[in-house]
Amino acid sequence: MNWFTEMWTPHIKFSIEIKEKLWEEQTPYQKLDFYDSFELGRFFTLDDIMMANEKDEFIYHEMIIHTPMSINPMIKHVLVIGGGDGGSVRELVKYPSILSIDMVEIDESVVRACEKYFPITTTGLKDKRVNLLFEDGLKFVMNTKKKYDLIIVDSTDPIGPGEGLFSKAFYHHCYQILTDDGILINQHESPYFDKEAKEMKRAHDKIKHLFPIALVYQAFIPTYPSGHWLFGFASKKLHPIKDFKTTYIHQFHQKTRYYNHDIHLGSFALPNYVIEKLDSK
Amino acid sequence: MNWFTEMWTPHIKFSIEIKEKLWEEQTPYQKLDFYDSFELGRFFTLDDIMMANEKDEFIYHEMIIHTPMSINPMIKHVLVIGGGDGGSVRELVKYPSILSIDMVEIDESVVRACEKYFPITTTGLKDKRVNLLFEDGLKFVMNTKKKYDLIIVDSTDPIGPGEGLFSKAFYHHCYQILTDDGILINQHESPYFDKEAKEMKRAHDKIKHLFPIALVYQAFIPTYPSGHWLFGFASKKLHPIKDFKTTYIHQFHQKTRYYNHDIHLGSFALPNYVIEKLDSK
Repeated sequence: MNWFTEMWTPHIKFSIEIKEKLWEEQTPYQKLDFYDSFELGRFFTLDDIMMANEKDEFIYHEMIIHTPMSINPMIKHVLVIGGGDGGSVRELVKYPSILSIDMVEIDESVVRACEKYFPITTTGLKDKRVNLLFEDGLKFVMNTKKKYDLIIVDSTDPIGPGEGLFSKAFYHHCYQILTDDGILINQHESPYFDKEAKEMKRAHDKIKHLFPIALVYQAFIPTYPSGHWLFGFASKKLHPIKDFKTTYIHQFHQKTRYYNHDIHLGSFALPNYVIEKLDSK
Repeated sequence: MNWFTEMWTPHIKFSIEIKEKLWEEQTPYQKLDFYDSFELGRFFTLDDIMMANEKDEFIYHEMIIHTPMSINPMIKHVLVIGGGDGGSVRELVKYPSILSIDMVEIDESVVRACEKYFPITTTGLKDKRVNLLFEDGLKFVMNTKKKYDLIIVDSTDPIGPGEGLFSKAFYHHCYQILTDDGILINQHESPYFDKEAKEMKRAHDKIKHLFPIALVYQAFIPTYPSGHWLFGFASKKLHPIKDFKTTYIHQFHQKTRYYNHDIHLGSFALPNYVIEKLDSK
């Protein structure tokens, strides 16, 4: 028997029985591996950390996209930083009202390998509104002259190529290129195990310093460490609860498997211990 | 290095590095083991399945108790079925308004070993309102003449000694011994992996057939399979959202580390895929 094991902490292991290894590659930025498994279907890892699998990628991608899209139906121009598997773009192209989606991914190898070995997330990349740019996300937000209504930071952990996407400079430039109604959503780590909880706290401290509204919401993602995963919601004026009326995606008769009206509201209800960690000095 | 491994499914393993094994015992009903670990502190297992650990037992016990207690502040007589570690009773005794707590646990060995090796959950068992009965929960609910305002089914999985606590006869007799304002809460398995999802569905089908109100709520419990764990809320007339006004526990200046007002409401917001599994034919 052949198992892939991720160290969730130095003292906790999560292991997946593998049917077959489909691909492995050392890209200029990171180690990329694709597997087929009995329980989760196909999945891929970056530097031996689970990125996405066929069983639950829908949870992450629905929650990172439909939450902000339901706050402002006027969103026209979207920037996705990272998100090399294409899952965020797949959810975005379901909105006919969106005019442009710029996806800035540093590592072209991830996109090309996903197109081949993980095609369930790449179906939106051929949409004519999508503009794929293979460059550094931090540099992009520093240099672009374009304004965006929504920025999705669909990053890896803040180690390796994802590190700059957790920096104060990055959030500052995101603020600059957002419209007045703009929303910034970021992958926000997890509150439970120490390593992710520390990064959660660092990211939140930086974002709340810059944005008038800076909240955190959560989803059950069983294959990420602890299964309790967070997203950041930051904006200049729109509030994710007060300005929420309806799940905009369902107006287009699009089905969602995780996201719905009550989940939108309930995902911002954080446990006391998470609130305390976020607010601690 | 020494690891305890739980098979979350035949193809997924969750492993915890052990400092020390504290106790092992084959009771008349099950295999009981206590460990000390680096990440989770002390924990104990029944038939090699994680029951409770020092890092996150508070989530399970707060959610199973404070949710129903906030719906009806007039609760006076409580029955706990199972719950051998005492964690549910520990939360119940925080309410001065409760007059009696009958705890019916089939396996005395679990209680005695927890008192010695897992004392953080047993602190309520010496409260003078608590009546400990070591007998079969199904037989108890069939024979008792007492009426209860709240029944907490704090059971293991429906295999071995926990099996009768998932039967139609058990739920039927619980209904009979509940007052008109009575509430039944049960450990309700999980929606994500097949084995628990099947038991979730079976339990819900039986309960909704008997109770006018039969809902499911959830919590992030990282050390149970998938980290997405459910509780059942069943009652004759009280509704967990419509009849919820305030978190009753906080009126006694008791702190909670997970449960709060927004969590109460948000925990009933289920993902679409969970609703579909619960409602499927």
